[in-house]
Amino acid sequence: MKLATLKDRTRDGRLVVVSKDLTRCTEVGHIARTLQAALDDWAHVAPRLAEVAEGLEHGAQPESRFHEHDAASPLPRSYQWADGSAYVNHVELVRKARGAEMPETFWTDPLMYQGGSDAFLGPRDPIRFPDGADATWGIDMEGEVAVIVDDVPMGATIDQAREAIRLVMLVNDISLRGLIPAELAKGFGFFQSKPSSAFSPVAVTPDELGDAWDGGKLHLPLLVDYNGKAFGKANAGVDMTFDFPQLIAHAARTRPLGAGAIIGSGTVSNKLDGGPGKPIDQGGVGYSCIAEIRTIETIDDGKPSTPFMKFGDTVRIEMKDAAGHSIFGAIEQKVEKMAR
Amino acid sequence: MKLATLKDRTRDGRLVVVSKDLTRCTEVGHIARTLQAALDDWAHVAPRLAEVAEGLEHGAQPESRFHEHDAASPLPRSYQWADGSAYVNHVELVRKARGAEMPETFWTDPLMYQGGSDAFLGPRDPIRFPDGADATWGIDMEGEVAVIVDDVPMGATIDQAREAIRLVMLVNDISLRGLIPAELAKGFGFFQSKPSSAFSPVAVTPDELGDAWDGGKLHLPLLVDYNGKAFGKANAGVDMTFDFPQLIAHAARTRPLGAGAIIGSGTVSNKLDGGPGKPIDQGGVGYSCIAEIRTIETIDDGKPSTPFMKFGDTVRIEMKDAAGHSIFGAIEQKVEKMAR
Repeated sequence: MKLATLKDRTRDGRLVVVSKDLTRCTEVGHIARTLQAALDDWAHVAPRLAEVAEGLEHGAQPESRFHEHDAASPLPRSYQWADGSAYVNHVELVRKARGAEMPETFWTDPLMYQGGSDAFLGPRDPIRFPDGADATWGIDMEGEVAVIVDDVPMGATIDQAREAIRLVMLVNDISLRGLIPAELAKGFGFFQSKPSSAFSPVAVTPDELGDAWDGGKLHLPLLVDYNGKAFGKANAGVDMTFDFPQLIAHAARTRPLGAGAIIGSGTVSNKLDGGPGKPIDQGGVGYSCIAEIRTIETIDDGKPSTPFMKFGDTVRIEMKDAAGHSIFGAIEQKVEKMAR
Repeated sequence: MKLATLKDRTRDGRLVVVSKDLTRCTEVGHIARTLQAALDDWAHVAPRLAEVAEGLEHGAQPESRFHEHDAASPLPRSYQWADGSAYVNHVELVRKARGAEMPETFWTDPLMYQGGSDAFLGPRDPIRFPDGADATWGIDMEGEVAVIVDDVPMGATIDQAREAIRLVMLVNDISLRGLIPAELAKGFGFFQSKPSSAFSPVAVTPDELGDAWDGGKLHLPLLVDYNGKAFGKANAGVDMTFDFPQLIAHAARTRPLGAGAIIGSGTVSNKLDGGPGKPIDQGGVGYSCIAEIRTIETIDDGKPSTPFMKFGDTVRIEMKDAAGHSIFGAIEQKVEKMAR
């Protein structure tokens, strides 16, 4: 089934079940008012939501039009947002760009940071920063896949982690590249360099993904458009060094995860020989963030030529099934100057 | 007023107003079922809770006994837990212990890490880790003060940050010292080295603190007992390089904070000449974590002699007002082996 959260006057919005084709939705407040409430009691709630989803496909439910721009992020706020860097290729490239060595252990021990989760942006919300930020903060998108998990006990096995995956969605993990070097140099990881993230309008249960989901990875291209032009189409199932069960188990090694915790893949990136060495219009798979094309430019030309995002720039992140239909709806965001 | 969350069958527990002397409490489900619900609508809810608190002091409310061991952390889970390292003296000492230099900017730019907030421990819950963890993980307590804020806009001024402080409480920010060096070396900050934290049984509005609260710091000794003996009594108002408004503004520089976000002070620590150079029984103010006494031991004797916490060890963290009454109730936790 497919779930979305419609914006309303509350902080957590209103849960709806969405049709497979993303055109219609139906209210489920009598079952669970919010997605977090559904996740808090998933074993009981999910079968009832699945019944509604089934009815919606067959016209047996009261329905209204579903508009992606009415949606908040599926969880407008969550109790945990932990983002891995599973495409180690991306990590290696980005570090290369800032002249940092990559330890060999990065291929065996997942990198993960804890993101802010109290105020996510909606999938169509502007990315607002103060005047001047676009000149110095290095505003960048990061196209990613993420899962929402059920309760995961401390020390969970890979199998327990796999079984705890409830929903899959897309992310724009907005990053402020200009703030990263100084912040990481302090040794405590990202904070100001990772502003609010945005998630796709719809989160889906793994069964909606068919063969594209193998229990750990999502084998489809992540489509990233930048200012209306195709910018990236790296396959999320390729070069993912750590799959979602591994990332979840890593996050749960010394503490339990609560239902509704979000675990991200990190920027989707395919290896040089197959991909990011070339832009899409040169036959490559392109990029899921600007930092990566800048790295390639630096490697090729000695310096980057693609600037980071400026006020007015837009990014669109989407994924389509084999038949070309949007699975999660699209994240589409414009960078704007914050009103004073 | 003083607020607590009683454990029940729900994930967020049940909000109660607690008497100033911590002996009695009264249900407020008709006003707000949970502390998060109260924080979500603080402007409307707080005055009604304050009225109940007033009535409770005068015997004008139905009441029951308040037992600290029935309490969950005031927010059993929260949408954000960001912990500063405001006592830069502690940072300098701990880094010295692991042979890491401290950059000069640490005195002017706050250190802050994002903690897991989806599964806090209750104030009397055991700290459970798997068999063998106490031999290698370096289990340590960290006694701290924390505030819960209302909504804070991105780019908030220090004054806006100060005005957003709603509640004050204590924290045991449990740390796994044995996992820190390898994790920080990866460059993304703490994750596995920071397991679930625990908060004091009661959170209080700043007005309950009288003159001890100056709007930014809490000027009282933080009492840390280790295995039943006084271990620390460093004053939380002394040597706090960054006060809470500064920490909040730092956290909100590039993103808004949502109501209920928790901002921590970092381990309370007073400077060498006044304090941690000496244990309490030698006339010093002692320590709020074991890492600090180990550093002093290393400086004095060339190696640490106090081991980290073992299964069976207990820590108690409390703060008393000028009259000797407990303000927040006590965090009291025993380290235990996790059942298989």
